[in-house]
This record gives sequence, C-alpha cells and structure tokens, in this order.
Amino acid sequence: MSVSVAQSVSVAQVSMRVRGYHLDGYGHVNNARYLEFMEEGRWAFFDEHPRLIKQLYQAGQAFVVVNLNIDYRAAAVEGDDLRVLTGIIGVSERSAVCHHCIIRKDGTLVAQADLTFVLLDMQLNKAAPIEGEVREALVSLVVNKQAFSAQ
Amino acid sequence: MSVSVAQSVSVAQVSMRVRGYHLDGYGHVNNARYLEFMEEGRWAFFDEHPRLIKQLYQAGQAFVVVNLNIDYRAAAVEGDDLRVLTGIIGVSERSAVCHHCIIRKDGTLVAQADLTFVLLDMQLNKAAPIEGEVREALVSLVVNKQAFSAQ
Amino acid sequence: MSVSVAQSVSVAQVSMRVRGYHLDGYGHVNNARYLEFMEEGRWAFFDEHPRLIKQLYQAGQAFVVVNLNIDYRAAAVEGDDLRVLTGIIGVSERSAVCHHCIIRKDGTLVAQADLTFVLLDMQLNKAAPIEGEVREALVSLVVNKQAFSAQ
Amino acid sequence: MSVSVAQSVSVAQVSMRVRGYHLDGYGHVNNARYLEFMEEGRWAFFDEHPRLIKQLYQAGQAFVVVNLNIDYRAAAVEGDDLRVLTGIIGVSERSAVCHHCIIRKDGTLVAQADLTFVLLDMQLNKAAPIEGEVREALVSLVVNKQAFSAQ
Repeated sequence: MSVSVAQSVSVAQVSMRVRGYHLDGYGHVNNARYLEFMEEGRWAFFDEHPRLIKQLYQAGQAFVVVNLNIDYRAAAVEGDDLRVLTGIIGVSERSAVCHHCIIRKDGTLVAQADLTFVLLDMQLNKAAPIEGEVREALVSLVVNKQAFSAQ
Repeated sequence: MSVSVAQSVSVAQVSMRVRGYHLDGYGHVNNARYLEFMEEGRWAFFDEHPRLIKQLYQAGQAFVVVNLNIDYRAAAVEGDDLRVLTGIIGVSERSAVCHHCIIRKDGTLVAQADLTFVLLDMQLNKAAPIEGEVREALVSLVVNKQAFSAQ
Repeated sequence: MSVSVAQSVSVAQVSMRVRGYHLDGYGHVNNARYLEFMEEGRWAFFDEHPRLIKQLYQAGQAFVVVNLNIDYRAAAVEGDDLRVLTGIIGVSERSAVCHHCIIRKDGTLVAQADLTFVLLDMQLNKAAPIEGEVREALVSLVVNKQAFSAQ
Repeated sequence: MSVSVAQSVSVAQVSMRVRGYHLDGYGHVNNARYLEFMEEGRWAFFDEHPRLIKQLYQAGQAFVVVNLNIDYRAAAVEGDDLRVLTGIIGVSERSAVCHHCIIRKDGTLVAQADLTFVLLDMQLNKAAPIEGEVREALVSLVVNKQAFSAQ
C-alpha cells in the first residue's frame, strides 16, 4: 500500500546482535546500553536524511535531548538479534518527538521510547523555535506509530 | 527539623566527578552515562538498606525496571562535581517508583528521573504483587520529592 | 592465491561506523571503547566457528583473557567506517593468542592488539592445558599476521 | 620511612565498588571496564598534580596513549571494593610510561597495566619530544614499581 510505503521510508532500521559486553550481571542487556542502541538508531536515521542535518548545520543549530521516556518490556540476552526502529512522530513549536522500538527477531517488543528534543542555537547557547527549513524537513519526516508495527 | 531528618535518612547520596570517558563528542556527559550514574545511586541506596535486600532475597524476588522517565536539564562537563540523590517516592500494589536527582556542586539540577520497577518472582519468572515484609520495608522508606531538595 | 584464501577464512571481519557515543571529550574514540570493538570482533569470529564453541562447551571450559597488548595508532572520529579483523595467531601448551586489527576505510591502521587467553576449567575454576579436540580446533584456525594485511 | 613517604605522594589512589553495570554476562567486570577504572585513576593523578597539567596546557600539548599492556589477574565481582593505584614509572626522550594496579580489599591483585603515552603538539598535530618544564614535572613524579606494593 502506497501510504505505508511512504511512511516506511522515514523509519530507519538498524540491526545488532546482543554480545557479552552488552549484558549486566544478571545476563540481561543493561538498562543504559539500550540508550546506546537507540542512539545508534538515531545516527542511522540521520545518515538516511542528510538534508535534515545539512539544514540544521546551516542554521547553526543542534539537537539536544530534553526528555526520554523508555519502557523496558522484555529482557534481551546474549545472541538475540535486535532491530532498532527510529522515526519522528511529532513536531511542535519548540520541541519534537522521536520514537524508538527495539524488536527481537521473534517479533517480541524488547523496549520502546519517546525522546523529546529541542533545537539549540549554538551561538546563543539557548533553545530556538523550530521554524523555517529545519521545520519543513522535520515535518516532512513525521510518521505515526503504526508505521513502526508495519516494519 | 526532625521530619526532614527522618526523611533524609532514606535519600541516598553518592558523589562523582565527571571525567573524559563520561563525555561524548560534544564534550557533554552522554545521555546513556546518566543511567549508569543513577544505577550507582540505586546501589548506594541498597547498601544503606541491607534489610530490604535481605527480605527481597528471602522472598526469591528481584527488582526489574519497567519504565524510566528522565529529564535532561543541564549539560554536565569534565570536572563537574555531581551528587546523585536516590529515594523511593511511591509504592502501589504491583509497582514502585524510585526518584533520582543529579545535582551539580553549584546547585544546578542536571537531570532527574522517575524509575518504575516491579518485583520479579525468580522461580516463576513473572511479576509478583508487592506484599508482606518486602512491602513493609519499601513503604517504610518512602519519601516525598521535597526530601530531595532539602539535601 | 589459494593459500591466502585458505587463511582468510579464519580471519573474521566485522564493520562499524563511529558514532557520537563512542567518542570521549576530545572527539576521539575512547581507549576503552576499542576493547568493545575488538570483543565484537571475537564474537563474530565465534559465530563463524561454532564447532570451536561447541567443543569448548562440551569440555566444560571457557576462554579467559589474561593479557591484552594494544597499540593505538591513529585516532578514529565520528563517521569513520571501521573494520575489525580477528584471528588466532598462536597456540601453546597453556595459552593462545588472538590478534585484532582495526582498519579505517582509507586503509589506515587505527589500532592493533594481541590478546592472550587461557582455558578455564569451569568445574575446577582453574586454568586447564589446551589439549584434545579444543586444541585441534584452535590449531586448525591459526593464521599468520600477513593474513590480516591481505584482507 | 621517609623514602617510601616521598614515593607514595606520587602514587594516586582512587576507590570504587564494583556494581552490576560494570559486569558482563559472566558476572565478572568486563575487560573494557577496567580501562575506565584506570582512566579514573589517571584523572585522580592529574587532580593531585595540577602543576603538570598547567605546564602541559601552556606548552600546547596533550597526552596521547600509544600502547596499553594489561594483565588480567583475578576476576572482580559485584560488591568488590577496589583501589586503583596510578603513577609514572619512566620518562624517555619521546614517551613516558604510567603504571596502574587494581587491588581488591583483601590484597589480591586484580589487574595491572603499563600505559605508554606521548606528548601531542596540538598545533602541529604531531608527537613532540618530552622536554623543558613538562619533562621536569614528569621526571620529578617518577616512582618505581615497589612504590605500588607499599600502598
């Protein structure tokens, strides 16, 4: 279906296998490590959308995370093959929200998170409104959460 | 004031200095690293409350984190002296909430988080209701968020 | 050339792109992070040689690292595409040596290491001689260091 | 004894307790994590010798690690109280060597390492000879390895 195809192009996907150094003493992926997996997902998203990064750079702005709300749903263990899905699910006047899902090969949802970020004006060192070309680029990438389960 | 003294005994405090390996490429403490700082805070809390850990152990249970909601409020940089404050702010039938503040030496709030955990029955490998001696121990440690700003 | 082909099957290769969370405050990949990259390389090596792991398991043994000697040759920065090459370069009576190279896309050697490991008898909790089927499996995988530059 | 006192002032000591997030899937402190413990030791050393850092800064130079040779001697586990000892054990024309010991509370040597570093001329982006005030500062701090076992 064309709509789902259009959405899926804005959900980045990266794969990783859980290794011994990802685990904590309980044999589960450590809570903090999931944030690295999700950061890996955001970098993959940026790699796929170089226009966004270029416009951000030209505007003298950087993304700054202000909130992360993460659900830990199932424990991942050594050898698990995980996919991290990453997309933007909302843009408001001064902030935007990025959504992440981490899904095990058998389809189990391991973790999901909403990450709220603002734009930092790097010269003024303060948050800037989301406007102009950066806004257009962000808005054009917005997907709804259904796009994640369609992956 | 006696009430604030009584509360403060249930807020654990641990100190750390930000080092080069805590930073990311922007020269700021990386988002994932704050979770390690907060985990350090929880371990310090457990060290101060061995009765809780002993009862948990006897009940064949373990704490499992199911949600973390973290606000990143200010960027910490190399050399910053941080305090991590940790306490329990609520206990319901099946979950409890732990609160963390990370405060810079100058009093600036760097990050704060609410972490929701459940009790895992390790034999059944499923969440257990919070009851009995573990419940009593947890409830006796509950503080309100004002106890954190009093530190 | 058939010899180099024969050797190359025993050099595992894994690729990664340097991301912001790999860096330290100088904008370079942190010294400790390279050890995670190399551990990733060892897991990839094990994935390619399941017979070795199976024999180790049947012998009730585990690999334990006793020494790592790593040269840091060039600083890797955000966006660098790295390859980690991993192979076994020597087996003696009681220890064996694994070699790692981390090479940037432009061919620059970023880091190299020799990692010495022993076999731990997990029941006795002490080092065991390298013998029997595990020895055969390890010896059959030995490459010389030229096999790394041929990749 | 005055000699050992004189030496001990140049061996920095930092303490840490092993926590769940330091471990890998085997319940042991992960190989890479020891490098963070040792980096923590170097920062503590620098904190105690601000003159060295000031002279380095004035010379437009930075320390760059070129080799690390680490022996893993015993596995540290959750709850272990560790001390990291750090000192400079040699200075040659173009490089110097820093030694680290990680010792468990019961006196067991957990890990030890020699770390070789050079001075990077940050303007020229190349290694510089160790000379002048930086050399004097480094040489004045040199201890021999016996100073570590005296701690």
